[in-house]
Amino acid sequence: MKIDINVDMGESFGRYTLGDDEALMPYVTSANIATGFHAGDPLVLERTIKWAKEYHVAVGAHIGLPDRQGFGRRQMDISPEELRSDILYQLGAMDAFLKLHDMKMQHVKPHGILYRMVGEQEKYIDTFLDTIEEYNKDLYIMLHTGCEALKRAEARGLKVAPEVLVDLGYDEQGNWVLERVKKARSPEEVAARAVRVAKEGKIDTIDGKLVDVKGCTVCIHGDSPNAVEVARAVSGAMKASGIVLTNVINCLES
Amino acid sequence: MKIDINVDMGESFGRYTLGDDEALMPYVTSANIATGFHAGDPLVLERTIKWAKEYHVAVGAHIGLPDRQGFGRRQMDISPEELRSDILYQLGAMDAFLKLHDMKMQHVKPHGILYRMVGEQEKYIDTFLDTIEEYNKDLYIMLHTGCEALKRAEARGLKVAPEVLVDLGYDEQGNWVLERVKKARSPEEVAARAVRVAKEGKIDTIDGKLVDVKGCTVCIHGDSPNAVEVARAVSGAMKASGIVLTNVINCLES
Amino acid sequence: MKIDINVDMGESFGRYTLGDDEALMPYVTSANIATGFHAGDPLVLERTIKWAKEYHVAVGAHIGLPDRQGFGRRQMDISPEELRSDILYQLGAMDAFLKLHDMKMQHVKPHGILYRMVGEQEKYIDTFLDTIEEYNKDLYIMLHTGCEALKRAEARGLKVAPEVLVDLGYDEQGNWVLERVKKARSPEEVAARAVRVAKEGKIDTIDGKLVDVKGCTVCIHGDSPNAVEVARAVSGAMKASGIVLTNVINCLES
Amino acid sequence: MKIDINVDMGESFGRYTLGDDEALMPYVTSANIATGFHAGDPLVLERTIKWAKEYHVAVGAHIGLPDRQGFGRRQMDISPEELRSDILYQLGAMDAFLKLHDMKMQHVKPHGILYRMVGEQEKYIDTFLDTIEEYNKDLYIMLHTGCEALKRAEARGLKVAPEVLVDLGYDEQGNWVLERVKKARSPEEVAARAVRVAKEGKIDTIDGKLVDVKGCTVCIHGDSPNAVEVARAVSGAMKASGIVLTNVINCLES
Repeated sequence: MKIDINVDMGESFGRYTLGDDEALMPYVTSANIATGFHAGDPLVLERTIKWAKEYHVAVGAHIGLPDRQGFGRRQMDISPEELRSDILYQLGAMDAFLKLHDMKMQHVKPHGILYRMVGEQEKYIDTFLDTIEEYNKDLYIMLHTGCEALKRAEARGLKVAPEVLVDLGYDEQGNWVLERVKKARSPEEVAARAVRVAKEGKIDTIDGKLVDVKGCTVCIHGDSPNAVEVARAVSGAMKASGIVLTNVINCLES
Repeated sequence: MKIDINVDMGESFGRYTLGDDEALMPYVTSANIATGFHAGDPLVLERTIKWAKEYHVAVGAHIGLPDRQGFGRRQMDISPEELRSDILYQLGAMDAFLKLHDMKMQHVKPHGILYRMVGEQEKYIDTFLDTIEEYNKDLYIMLHTGCEALKRAEARGLKVAPEVLVDLGYDEQGNWVLERVKKARSPEEVAARAVRVAKEGKIDTIDGKLVDVKGCTVCIHGDSPNAVEVARAVSGAMKASGIVLTNVINCLES
Repeated sequence: MKIDINVDMGESFGRYTLGDDEALMPYVTSANIATGFHAGDPLVLERTIKWAKEYHVAVGAHIGLPDRQGFGRRQMDISPEELRSDILYQLGAMDAFLKLHDMKMQHVKPHGILYRMVGEQEKYIDTFLDTIEEYNKDLYIMLHTGCEALKRAEARGLKVAPEVLVDLGYDEQGNWVLERVKKARSPEEVAARAVRVAKEGKIDTIDGKLVDVKGCTVCIHGDSPNAVEVARAVSGAMKASGIVLTNVINCLES
Repeated sequence: MKIDINVDMGESFGRYTLGDDEALMPYVTSANIATGFHAGDPLVLERTIKWAKEYHVAVGAHIGLPDRQGFGRRQMDISPEELRSDILYQLGAMDAFLKLHDMKMQHVKPHGILYRMVGEQEKYIDTFLDTIEEYNKDLYIMLHTGCEALKRAEARGLKVAPEVLVDLGYDEQGNWVLERVKKARSPEEVAARAVRVAKEGKIDTIDGKLVDVKGCTVCIHGDSPNAVEVARAVSGAMKASGIVLTNVINCLES
């Protein structure tokens, strides 16, 4: 039994620090590194890639909207053509650094509202998939398990890395939801949820039931104050349960 | 006798148009395309690359400082580490589009004040050369003939494309100078200067003398109101003089 | 019979020129000057204000979304709190320059998609009106005649400057529409429409009928290639028809 | 005996938090609030102003270079005209929020490298003073005690607030210096230095001597990890020594 743990990283920008990336690295198998649009900058990008290499963490492009002030969380009505060129620009920029460090990009994961736009909105899904396929069809597309874009990606024969958001709420349809009152989950609770996802393919809903969720990777949010503790707890509980933590490629290809 | 004509392109941005790139393409053999920091944007970048392909024009990365408001013309005291990462980010971004269109980057040319910073300022020269060498040692480095960076590049065995700025003033040392009163040069005058550079390796100075300048490429500024006329005149006069217009690689390698 | 002619100005940015503002000034009575978010910059802002003063043109703040690349035309899902603070920041910035030139801000007009957001979208209308009322209740709110925001503004006792877009298409409900095939209108046609709006309060629809439109100001788009010609034609035709061209304050208060 | 304590605030930006402004407010008498160029944003600006009002802290504009990525710390060769318009834009933007909260701007303090540019560099000093004088001659100009700009400001009859940087190193000429090895100073040490500045007008140098420094305000850097502790210690030690802590206006005008 294998699973990947992915965390958003490389979100610092100039004088601004966000997340303790290096401290998180030991507990993570895939890093989603910001590519400089919604967060990150060229210096941060390379520094984070170097850490990932040092800790043997696989690297993905965490692409975002061109809206640093809104941290890529405000829906913007960009055209599909703009989406395509914004994605290519970001993927290429990251690949320059990966090339220098003799690494390969494992996956692409859209950040913030772009996660919903390309995962669920008709206007953008196919352009997103076209762009990834055209640029590098070996990239794993990391999106929420069950979303429309993943279904179409699989139908096309693209590589997919469905994920489960183990620190967020879920409804009975297996969709993640923003809880009205944000539920504080202890590191131990998140860890227990992650283990259940890995072992049973199930997660508890906001109404206390269990629903099926299938994923090869679980996401932990790296910008919460206790992110390192949560990551350590999840990683520890997984290992204690006999689950092998390894990156997406190893989970799915070996 | 062969020479290359290079022009800055891809400087439009969103709603803003700068230069008539498509109209210039027939008269140009190498395009320096803005990589989105001082000018350009991802949509403009790809559009310009597509035109270059259509007109069989070689493509170079026109890298700049992260200062769109100042159009990359205001010296900024960035650190060498920032220079390195800013360059890599831009080169990678452009390479994403080139890859999709099955093209290769021929050269790199710094824009605006960065041209002087990496060409002449001790703080930046070696970092610039290190970065290019590390990223892609097949790239031609396009800078002003005789500048310190080109000397060091040659000493290292890097590829160089020394250029002459045929629409600007020169002093007796063969340095280009900003003329106190900007001298208006007709398309014919610029063309005659370009032909003399190609045939005799000489250019007239602001004092009316002739100095030696050796270059494999002549630059015409694409953002002047009569840029297309100048480019047509230069191209026409070159051909009429029996000079073969071809890109940098063909000039130097065949 | 009096009417105001308003044009968007101050949209240039750094090296980028958009519109020939000084050439337009003689034919305009109110200038909507970009406040540096979607277009313009501090240097352009002051230069345009100085031209407005020289030509006795009233000045309004042309506020926009923080999206220069999209020229403020891409809907962004900003929060009402962000809208409020973005507006105040822009109004204050412009007022600094007006104060130095001993001028008063006459009106505020939202640019691009913000025109629709604060004019018609429930999420933003009241926040927009609250913000203007709180900052300066003497400002005229310039929006499309008949829009929801103008109705509420009037109900609150705020000052309104309803406008008609004389170079765009209209439907039978008196709404402006984007024509499927953009209809080219000659300067004379636009001028004739403007005169009819001023004299009869009517405009022709895309189906060739006439509908009522009441406005104290007509807008001409300043970024079209023949904008100066159009402005000259409208201004000339108005005067020839005995209509007094004067700014919004004079139209409505004297 | 009276003195002011000033701290940089409002430097957060979108998702990025920098400094714990509200926790600092009780120990501060003047806040230098970022005006959105090098740091801050419109939402942060108003929030910080509201805290300042609540805690009866005087407000100044912390103006900076248009370089958010470099946090306004990289010298940029802007023109004096750009300096002027960038300053006016920022002052006006802040004044919009102050007006709404019925507050007055007390002072202006340049941030980062702009502190040196307008305080010491011939190219910028007079333009800076001209701009402040033209915009609002009641503003206190806060710069390092003894700098050229303050001398000229006094000679012109402008209001000045000379400051001492009590957490940095000094040389024997009374200039602040960047220490080769950054000296860690405990909150108690900084507090003792601040008290000596207030009572004796002296500060210790990096060589362990004492030099004269005259200032009406001491600056504590708000972005260090223990900034709140330092501020509390300085404030406490001042009060324990019988020094009255009050803002610049009260220090100098009453």
